[in-house]
Parts: sequence; structure tokens; C-alpha cells
Amino acid sequence: MNVVDLIERKRDGGVLSDDEIAWLIRSYTAEVVTDYQMAAMAMAVFIRGLDPNELAAWTSAMMHSGEVLDFSHIDAPKVDKHSTGGVGDKVSIPLVPMVAACGVAIPMISGRGLGHTGGTLDKLESIPGFRTQLTPPEFAAVLERHGLVLAGQSETLVPADRKLYALRDVSGTVPSIPLISSSIMSKKLAEGLDALVLDVKVGVGAFMQGLSDARILAETMVEIGTRHGVATVAYLTAMGAPLGREVGNASEIRESLDVLRGGGPTDLVEVTTTLGVEMLLAAGVSDDGADARHQLQRTIDSGRALELFAEVIEAQGGDPRVVEDDSLMAKADRSHTVTADRSGYLAAAHARKIGVAAMRLGAGRERKEDTIDPGVGITLDSKPGDRVAEGDPLATLRYRHPARLQEALRVLNGAFVVADEVSTEPLIIDRVAASA
Amino acid sequence: MNVVDLIERKRDGGVLSDDEIAWLIRSYTAEVVTDYQMAAMAMAVFIRGLDPNELAAWTSAMMHSGEVLDFSHIDAPKVDKHSTGGVGDKVSIPLVPMVAACGVAIPMISGRGLGHTGGTLDKLESIPGFRTQLTPPEFAAVLERHGLVLAGQSETLVPADRKLYALRDVSGTVPSIPLISSSIMSKKLAEGLDALVLDVKVGVGAFMQGLSDARILAETMVEIGTRHGVATVAYLTAMGAPLGREVGNASEIRESLDVLRGGGPTDLVEVTTTLGVEMLLAAGVSDDGADARHQLQRTIDSGRALELFAEVIEAQGGDPRVVEDDSLMAKADRSHTVTADRSGYLAAAHARKIGVAAMRLGAGRERKEDTIDPGVGITLDSKPGDRVAEGDPLATLRYRHPARLQEALRVLNGAFVVADEVSTEPLIIDRVAASA
Repeated sequence: MNVVDLIERKRDGGVLSDDEIAWLIRSYTAEVVTDYQMAAMAMAVFIRGLDPNELAAWTSAMMHSGEVLDFSHIDAPKVDKHSTGGVGDKVSIPLVPMVAACGVAIPMISGRGLGHTGGTLDKLESIPGFRTQLTPPEFAAVLERHGLVLAGQSETLVPADRKLYALRDVSGTVPSIPLISSSIMSKKLAEGLDALVLDVKVGVGAFMQGLSDARILAETMVEIGTRHGVATVAYLTAMGAPLGREVGNASEIRESLDVLRGGGPTDLVEVTTTLGVEMLLAAGVSDDGADARHQLQRTIDSGRALELFAEVIEAQGGDPRVVEDDSLMAKADRSHTVTADRSGYLAAAHARKIGVAAMRLGAGRERKEDTIDPGVGITLDSKPGDRVAEGDPLATLRYRHPARLQEALRVLNGAFVVADEVSTEPLIIDRVAASA
Repeated sequence: MNVVDLIERKRDGGVLSDDEIAWLIRSYTAEVVTDYQMAAMAMAVFIRGLDPNELAAWTSAMMHSGEVLDFSHIDAPKVDKHSTGGVGDKVSIPLVPMVAACGVAIPMISGRGLGHTGGTLDKLESIPGFRTQLTPPEFAAVLERHGLVLAGQSETLVPADRKLYALRDVSGTVPSIPLISSSIMSKKLAEGLDALVLDVKVGVGAFMQGLSDARILAETMVEIGTRHGVATVAYLTAMGAPLGREVGNASEIRESLDVLRGGGPTDLVEVTTTLGVEMLLAAGVSDDGADARHQLQRTIDSGRALELFAEVIEAQGGDPRVVEDDSLMAKADRSHTVTADRSGYLAAAHARKIGVAAMRLGAGRERKEDTIDPGVGITLDSKPGDRVAEGDPLATLRYRHPARLQEALRVLNGAFVVADEVSTEPLIIDRVAASA
């Protein structure tokens, strides 16, 4: 096979066969196909697209570029959840212990934050000692023992995606639905799942800012999962404003602990519960939404979800006392409050600006090599829809360096809008399941 | 400036500014922009195109990526000719001494053959001792002394094109009109010309097989040249069958010498004369087609063109005696003749198949690193339109290795068509000049 022939065919709008795609991805992983050839191919795919067969083959080839996990020896149904990323989206952290406490095994592999979005791994690493890089035997052992594990991608899992993701980032080929969906799904399918629930974020704080693109991405991923024999459901959820009140790392763990104790902001609880119910239904642990919701509530009321989170923290090297004493996690000393310059209703808290501002404070990464400061971040003192009076606090920035505070405040310019009226947008926009 | 922003803009069909293009090409030459980024950009340009302003800026940026020659101290008008490449296209070799003998300075920089097409440099190197790699001072000295020079591109001329051309070859981005036209024109404009005559080949033996693509390429190059202040005219000429009777290297020099002696095949003489007339008119050495044709004929009749060719051969280290004794050049001992299997008219001699067959014999390169055998090649014993009887010779293959002969004969399958009738196609299809 000749890579130039394949590039030319895709360039001219043609179709690649399963074998050709498998060869391409294998050869790229083995460095026989070069980065410049794959960059040209990625651009051709970006512009010309992949049809459903090509996309299934591409995803499968990526998935099989490395190890594919097999937890068939674990009796419990294996289910995972994936979010396309947003601001303040800490849903996985309370969700996983709640669902695992209902008897579902969750081999969750998460990512790091980049740009305005946070990453579950960065947040977990706010817990002193918590290790997210586990060896494959460690990963399996934590899952077998506790029914859940929260870790980063190992070197052996989907190496083609690691290479291609890095290449896309520097070659202008990121926001492509086939390339995004195959990247996400190849990693999730390599986890050896029975079912998968996807949270596709929509709005100014999401990668997909428009509903129609987000819907296509959701439908595309559901189709890939279904073709691979994994029951897959996607939700479209709003990411116009941050989810919950906290945007940061340690602060998002604190807010997650609030949810596990039965508190937490309504929007965060609602998304967590909606996705949790879907996971229990997909796992077959419940066959009725009301029952599933009740089961999840019981893991909170009984304290079992919080206890399980403490167990997995300890199993992964972290200090489990954080669940009782969150002062064990970092918190920057200095704070600055942004207040309302008029009275009315908070009409907007612009998720992307708030995410970028938090990054400027040190809570996120502009470049991959940047380090995270777990103690800085932004707290939303008001949420969209709240009535505010002039001078009321809208947001509190926790910071260490005045220069970074100034940068963050500059980014926040226009992020908060107070108006006389406010229209509420639905939080859970839609559910996308496989067509029958 | 950020290369990813520029790639994304072109990917989405946007327009790049002059400054952005200059920065891109400069950064690529300096290896700040990587090959994989340029491959993604080349694919985006391939699919989205460049508008006339972008194309002028791109060509100019390429041209200025290295040295730009300046022969303003030479009084004679500086004119060059460029062909987009074909099979048996040795026009430059008789043309340059003829036109130079009329008082036009020709600083010709040629290329090597690749695939089914031959290259002027390879043909010239059939002359024992002939050096095509000249230093810039040597290049200037030969031009000043003799009014013509026939050499390859130096390392310092248009380095961006050398890099980009090699990259396009391995990344599926070759047949793009903006990329082809800017590649050709950046090199020609860097020669410091007053005028340029282009020969855009059309047909199965050309890179542009269709007339409409060839016409667009011709118009595009004429527009680029005109925008850069170089009087540029293009001809569209037929490349369905090889030009002349010889396809090879030493054999094409022999045929060129025939033209310089007043002989040679009609089609070769006609293309050579047409382009030569246009060069004399563009140079202002003549203001009338009939006069220009007469001047060219006089360089043949007087022997001055042949003498000048001998002088330039000697000046570039070659053995000038070849013009009197062409047995000084290589000629393979073995030959095989392909004959007509029926009587009728030779309706087709498929230029691409004949070019590939000659390459298989060793006259061309499949890969850049292949070496050329100057003594092998194919002679067309019959030309399209000729009446042939069953058993008459159609072509003679000169070869060294029987295995290569067999490969060549396999490629030639179907190359020659004998039919009861034959329609003649025009050789000179059209002339494309700047719109007023």
C-alpha cells in the first residue's frame, strides 16, 4: 500500500477501505507513515470527512493500535462516562463513586485540561498523594477491589491517538467531527466497556459551540459505539455558563465532596444524577429511571458513595482524610471579588471567559508543559438567573500573583451580564440514543 | 504570527494576507514552520485554492526565499522559456542556441526528469563532461561570455521551493494549479528576466491531461508573470504523442543537433520555431513574426546556432566535438523493434506509456535517487498520421538488460494504435497572453 495514493484519494473526496485505514493507522503508529503525511491526511479528512464505514474502521484501527483492556473476569457490568469538556465540569468526581456504589464497575480513564477547560486528572491531583498514572496491573487491581478506578491513559493504550492528537493540535486539524469522535471513542472502546454514557457540552464554554454541530458529534459517537457492540447514549447539556459554582482544581474537589454529602449546586447535581441514572439503566442495574434515581440518592444518604471515594483515594496513594477535612488541599490566600455594577438579574456568566480567566490565574494550561496551581480558581457567588443588587458579589478570584489577577480580570471583561430580565435555557438539552 | 491560525483560516476557505504568506514561507524556509504544518497547509491550499492576490504573494515569497539573480549589467534582453514537461520534449536544447544567436541572453535553469517525463539536465549530461551544476559566478560568467547558459538550480535559488516541492511529492499535494504555478514562476522570476515564454503541455503525456486545466495553469502563470513585471506569454501545445522521434537522453541530444543542422522532425521544429519567434518578439529583437522566423532560420543556415551550442558545451566542461560526432555519446548496443500488427494509419503513440517504457529501460527516474542510463531509449519509427503496412517498424527500443526490455514492452501494451482512419489534432493549440 502507498500512503500517497491514500492521501490523494481522500483529498479528491474518495473513500478508503477498512484494510487501507487499518494499514494507515498501523503504519503511522510504527512511524512508517510520517507526521507530514498524516498531517496532509488529517487535513484531507477534515475537509472531505469520513463516511460511517470509514469512521468505524478508523476508530477500530486507532483502538487496536495498542493494548485493549479486558475486564471480562469482573462480573459487574463495565460502564464509563465521558464529557467533551467544559468549564467547572467536575461531574465525573461525584458521579463515579455514586454509580460504582450501585454495583457498576467503572474503569475511568480521564484526561488533563487544556486551554479554557479543566481536566479530571488535574482536579484529582489536588488531593495530596493521589496518583493518576497507574501501571496496567495497578489499574486492574484498584478496579477489581473497589469497583472503580480514576486514572490517566497509559502509554500502551491507543498510542495512535496520542500521536495523532498531538499532531492535530499543531497542524490546524482539531475541530473535525470524525477526528474528534474517533479520538474519544477509540480510547473509550479500548477500556473494554459494556456501556458508555457521553456528555456532549454545547455553548460558549464547549468545543462545540453550536447545537447542530454538537448534535452531529453526539450522533456520530453513538453510532461508533453501537457499531462496536457497546450500548452508547449521549446527552447534550448546556455549557454557556460554568457548571456548579467552582472553577479550579482543589475547589472543584471540594464542591464534588459537597455533592457526595448531599449538597452542591442544583445544576451540578442535576447533570450528575441524569448521567448516573443513564449509567445504571445501561448497566442493567436498574430498569426504571425513578428507581435508578432512588438508588443513586441512597448512595448519598447512606454515606456509601463518600466512603467509596475515600477508599479509592487511599488505593491510589492519596490522603483519604480530605473527604472529612478539605483544608488538606491547597487554597490560595489572596482573593478579589467582582461585584455587580447595577441591580437586576445575572443574565450570563460566560463560561469560556471564566475558563480562560481561571487558566490565567494558574488553574489551567495554555501549553501542555505548563504546570497547574491547584489552589487558585474562581468561585461564582451568583449563578445565572439570580437576582443581584448593585455591589453584590458575582465572583471571587483566588490568586497568588497580582499580575495574574490583572490578566484574569482583563479576560473577565464582559463575562458577567446583569439585565432586567433573564431567559432560562434548559440544562439538559437532549438525549441521543442509537436509532432502532 | 501563529502558523496554526493561518492553517485554520485557509482550511476554512479564508484568505491570507501578503504579510502572512511572506511570514509563512520565510518561516518554513528557516524550519520554524515544520514539514507537518506545511503539509497541512499545502493540503488546505490544494482543496481551497489561492486567490490571485494570495498567489502573487505566495510566488513572491518563494522567489525571495533565496537569492534573486540580477543580470541588469548585461545589455541584451534576458528571456527564458519553460515547459511544464512532456515526453520527447527536447525543445530547449535547439531553441536556446537559436534564440541566443539572435542576440537574446538566456539564463536557463532547468530541471531533471521524474516519472514518465524527461529533464533537460539529464539530456545535457549525455554530453561527456558537461556540467550542469554551476556556481553562481560560473553561471554569470557563461551567460556574460556566450549569451546563454544551461544549468540546474543552485542551492541558493528559491530554497523554499526545493523544500516544498519535495514535501508535496510525498504528501499527496502535487497536481494543484496554485502550487504548480507558484513553484514554476518563483524559479523563473528569480532568474532576473525581462520576458518569459511558457510551453504548457496538454494530453496524456503531460501533467495536465485536460485542456481546461492546462488553460487555467497557463492563464495563472501568465498573470503571475505579468504582475511581477515580466512580459509572459504561454502556449498550449499537444502532448498526446511524444514530440519528435526520440525519447531518451543521448538520442534526444542527437535529434536536437539534427534541428540545429536544419533537419529534425517537423513537429519538433514547429514547436521550437513557434516558441523561438515568441521569445524574439518578447525580447524586442524583432517586431514581426515573419521576420523573427527568418532570423531564427538564419542561425541554422549560417551554422551559428550549432557553433554557439558547441561553445556553451565547452564553456560548461563538455566535449564540443559531439556536435560533429555524436558517436561520442552513449548508445546501448541492443535493440528491439515493435512492428505494426495490421496495415492502416498510426492513430496513436501514447506519450505517457512511451515515457514510462523509456523510464523502465533506464532513461528516466522512478525515484529521485535513481540514476539515468544516457544510452537507452525509444525511437519512434512511425509518427501518428503515418501510413503503415503490417510488419512495418513502429518503434525501436535501445536497451541493455533483457529484463528491463520485457518490462518496457509490457508497459507499451496498447501504446500504438493502427486504424483505418486518423484524425489529426493541432500541435500548437493556443496562445495565452496577458489580458489588456
